[in-house]
Amino acid sequence: MIETPSLVDQYCHGVLRTELGLGTFEAQLVRTEGPPAPGTTLFDTQTGFAVRRWCPPLLGLEPHCPPARYLARRRELGVLEAGRRLLRGSGITAYLVDTGLPGDLTGPTELGTAGDAEAHEIVRLEQLAEQVADTSGTVESFLANLAESVHAAAAHAVAFTSVAGVRHGPALAPEPPGPGEVRGAAGRWLAARRVGDEPSDPVLLRHLLWLAVASGRPLQLHAGLAAPGTRTDPVLLTDFVRATAGLGTDLVLLHGYPYHRQAAHLAGVFPHVYADCGTDPVRTGARAATVLAEVLELAPFGKILFSSGARGLPELHVVGAHLFREALARVLGAWVAEGAWSPDDARRVAGLIASGNAGRVYGLA
Amino acid sequence: MIETPSLVDQYCHGVLRTELGLGTFEAQLVRTEGPPAPGTTLFDTQTGFAVRRWCPPLLGLEPHCPPARYLARRRELGVLEAGRRLLRGSGITAYLVDTGLPGDLTGPTELGTAGDAEAHEIVRLEQLAEQVADTSGTVESFLANLAESVHAAAAHAVAFTSVAGVRHGPALAPEPPGPGEVRGAAGRWLAARRVGDEPSDPVLLRHLLWLAVASGRPLQLHAGLAAPGTRTDPVLLTDFVRATAGLGTDLVLLHGYPYHRQAAHLAGVFPHVYADCGTDPVRTGARAATVLAEVLELAPFGKILFSSGARGLPELHVVGAHLFREALARVLGAWVAEGAWSPDDARRVAGLIASGNAGRVYGLA
Amino acid sequence: MIETPSLVDQYCHGVLRTELGLGTFEAQLVRTEGPPAPGTTLFDTQTGFAVRRWCPPLLGLEPHCPPARYLARRRELGVLEAGRRLLRGSGITAYLVDTGLPGDLTGPTELGTAGDAEAHEIVRLEQLAEQVADTSGTVESFLANLAESVHAAAAHAVAFTSVAGVRHGPALAPEPPGPGEVRGAAGRWLAARRVGDEPSDPVLLRHLLWLAVASGRPLQLHAGLAAPGTRTDPVLLTDFVRATAGLGTDLVLLHGYPYHRQAAHLAGVFPHVYADCGTDPVRTGARAATVLAEVLELAPFGKILFSSGARGLPELHVVGAHLFREALARVLGAWVAEGAWSPDDARRVAGLIASGNAGRVYGLA
Repeated sequence: MIETPSLVDQYCHGVLRTELGLGTFEAQLVRTEGPPAPGTTLFDTQTGFAVRRWCPPLLGLEPHCPPARYLARRRELGVLEAGRRLLRGSGITAYLVDTGLPGDLTGPTELGTAGDAEAHEIVRLEQLAEQVADTSGTVESFLANLAESVHAAAAHAVAFTSVAGVRHGPALAPEPPGPGEVRGAAGRWLAARRVGDEPSDPVLLRHLLWLAVASGRPLQLHAGLAAPGTRTDPVLLTDFVRATAGLGTDLVLLHGYPYHRQAAHLAGVFPHVYADCGTDPVRTGARAATVLAEVLELAPFGKILFSSGARGLPELHVVGAHLFREALARVLGAWVAEGAWSPDDARRVAGLIASGNAGRVYGLA
Repeated sequence: MIETPSLVDQYCHGVLRTELGLGTFEAQLVRTEGPPAPGTTLFDTQTGFAVRRWCPPLLGLEPHCPPARYLARRRELGVLEAGRRLLRGSGITAYLVDTGLPGDLTGPTELGTAGDAEAHEIVRLEQLAEQVADTSGTVESFLANLAESVHAAAAHAVAFTSVAGVRHGPALAPEPPGPGEVRGAAGRWLAARRVGDEPSDPVLLRHLLWLAVASGRPLQLHAGLAAPGTRTDPVLLTDFVRATAGLGTDLVLLHGYPYHRQAAHLAGVFPHVYADCGTDPVRTGARAATVLAEVLELAPFGKILFSSGARGLPELHVVGAHLFREALARVLGAWVAEGAWSPDDARRVAGLIASGNAGRVYGLA
Repeated sequence: MIETPSLVDQYCHGVLRTELGLGTFEAQLVRTEGPPAPGTTLFDTQTGFAVRRWCPPLLGLEPHCPPARYLARRRELGVLEAGRRLLRGSGITAYLVDTGLPGDLTGPTELGTAGDAEAHEIVRLEQLAEQVADTSGTVESFLANLAESVHAAAAHAVAFTSVAGVRHGPALAPEPPGPGEVRGAAGRWLAARRVGDEPSDPVLLRHLLWLAVASGRPLQLHAGLAAPGTRTDPVLLTDFVRATAGLGTDLVLLHGYPYHRQAAHLAGVFPHVYADCGTDPVRTGARAATVLAEVLELAPFGKILFSSGARGLPELHVVGAHLFREALARVLGAWVAEGAWSPDDARRVAGLIASGNAGRVYGLA
């Protein structure tokens, strides 16, 4: 039996502080562009079914109970108490929290307290740039403050993350842009931006990525289909990956699905590249074991990290953790049963993926 | 036990009316460019093996009997009687028939009668354009007649379909082309075309797609590797998909394989997008359950539609239906056995994919 | 029970002649750019675990013994004796050996003798071009000698292979370049090259590929992610594949993973295209059966060829052969058990993939 008593969730967000109704809860289950199609519900997804499987028992209900009943019980307990029970039932012992999303989400400390777990901050580069832009008067001060802010963030955050940088990835030149280029791009962006605008200029984004690389903290890059309609096969990042090799900064490829085999390939080829095997379980539910097994094809076992990718609902942290743990036990257990792996190796690898690799990469205690 | 007594085949073609020998039958099994390689036969494919598994018993023979014996029995019964027995043994209760292929294929009425099932027409946009071109004297009359024909077709057809539009998809600008552009493209095509030429001008194809979108009928787009050597990862259609959102017209992505996970992603993100899970079973045979399960990862269960994609041989309708039904029962049955899904949910989802979703999307009785 | 007593390894390399320590052995297990990340080892990969499963018993140790113990036993026996025991325990009866890699690797004859098997040479086009360049004084003599060398190689080699040609594949015009173009490209390359430089000019590479096509010998093209960081979805080769159809020369797509479904598609559509199902087992280990089953979705069973892709370590030949044999037995055995395939068909197809197809394509006795 492969057990993983302790899980480090190396990438997630906080949870909503407000009470949710059936519709507002449903809208948080899956990222979409628009409401469910007429005659359909987002509860009829792998994520919806997984929530109904794993979460009702943590609130004292039977698995697979109807959504309305579950939501009634959740409101009865209140969002705080329900959140506490759910997070503490997840088995996650450390949360690494991307704090760069808008909305009334709990921060790392609050999440950690609710879940009785460690919590650490991941700084989102695009949001950092926005904050710095809000308080900088000139291009020169913006660029100086940006460098200073990344440096300061590196002292307390466990990692940096970037979405937009990768969204424009295929167009990225791999090298750091020159100072003149950066000044020009920053000037254009500062002149045109409205508050709340993420930077989208490729030169400015490359500059941000390279500031983060210089900090030495692990840099998490969003790949795959996580953002609706974007497409970032991580293989398209190969030139950037090669350009950052040997500098002492690790790159972590998040949400590879359905390009997770390609992400695993990069983790196999480049010493400083790691592959996330999380997020996908939350989205693929009953298929989590197969998707995990696909990551385990090419990625060295010391290069794979668990995450829930959860956002907004503590149910998603629960589902991410339970699906992952069950998938890992099933996949490795089957290989042991077939004689392909030894039981000792399987237990050791399970511990690496569940928490050991993350502890090493992020320098957790 | 997951059962699907009624199947709506949301995309197929008619069957050949002529008697077939071993070679002519073999040539219909799989779409290829050229005859089988020396020393090989197209019966040695998943499709060939699936035909030999499912069809002989419907004609009174044992499963897996040799092709020559099966063909002899088929000729003994005659193409009509064999076709009737096969189609009625498929469990398909409604056929949606793309009538836009050349060749002596039965139309919807004849197919429905032979199979004792409902039948509806799908109009292929490229063929409609050819027919209109054949009877229009000027660019102005061609464009007016084209708009009129699409409008008229929408009154009796259940859907439109387009192959060429998607074949040139990656190059497509997502928006409808302007009137001047369209006139120019139509003029060039009409001047250069020979009878039987499908339109291949990207501007004209975009115009066709947008005429169909304006009609409100579901628009089926061929993606994946269905046409030999073409490659249409449906993610490349994202901009077109986004441009058509909220207009009240559904898009159905056909034949996603091997990009079916990407098609499922789009069906999950965009309310008006649906994913076909058919065609693939016919081609992947003993692997149908796995490929179906991959579609079920990201696609909401209210957004998945069955089809056989069959063409020419009623054997392919049979194989599409049996493989799908068996795959669905196996995949959902396993999830119920593991406790991942409840039995009620599994039965309900099976009904949606087999016929419920198609009934709703195409407005079938 | 599906058995494959005889295996033709249609693509591999020789083995190292030197004794290896723990670190030098580890470095040969997997192709990477750089040493293992701190805190990790390349033994913690599917390849590493598969070597520890299958190889120790051939040297008299228990499966899954620690790497250090295995290496100690290997050195105790000596590299020659260990190699003999390993190769003779692989079940491979014929090796087709790509001799175009640098390094102290055994050639076909030595490999065949060690393994008590047939052995044949595969000529690597890029290396042939280098050798000819080393001994040709002018552009004219280089081109004449190159044509002559390809012609001469075709008389003794069983196949040609090309890596660089495909690496630049997406940019390749599909047709043969004209004589003036070729002269220009050859002149530029000869003027600029240093000894050991592989040709990378796209025109020169196209010329090489077409010389090989003209020879009539099967041409093996590297696709997939085999070379670190390169990305060659074989679908990108479609135009070249179509341009070479009907000329009497077969194309063999090597290492398709993770684009093996696309390679299988091309093998299904084009009579002269074949798909390798090897190499991948060595890299995906316990997942070999699934990856093999994915190739078996679209590729006709007469178009699939086994290889180990092994290089440097006889352990990789062993692992390739054992994983393939076990995967094939498991996949086909399951289909027989489900009734999807007949036992006779399964046995026949197993024989085709293990050796029959290779015997026919390469004209082996």
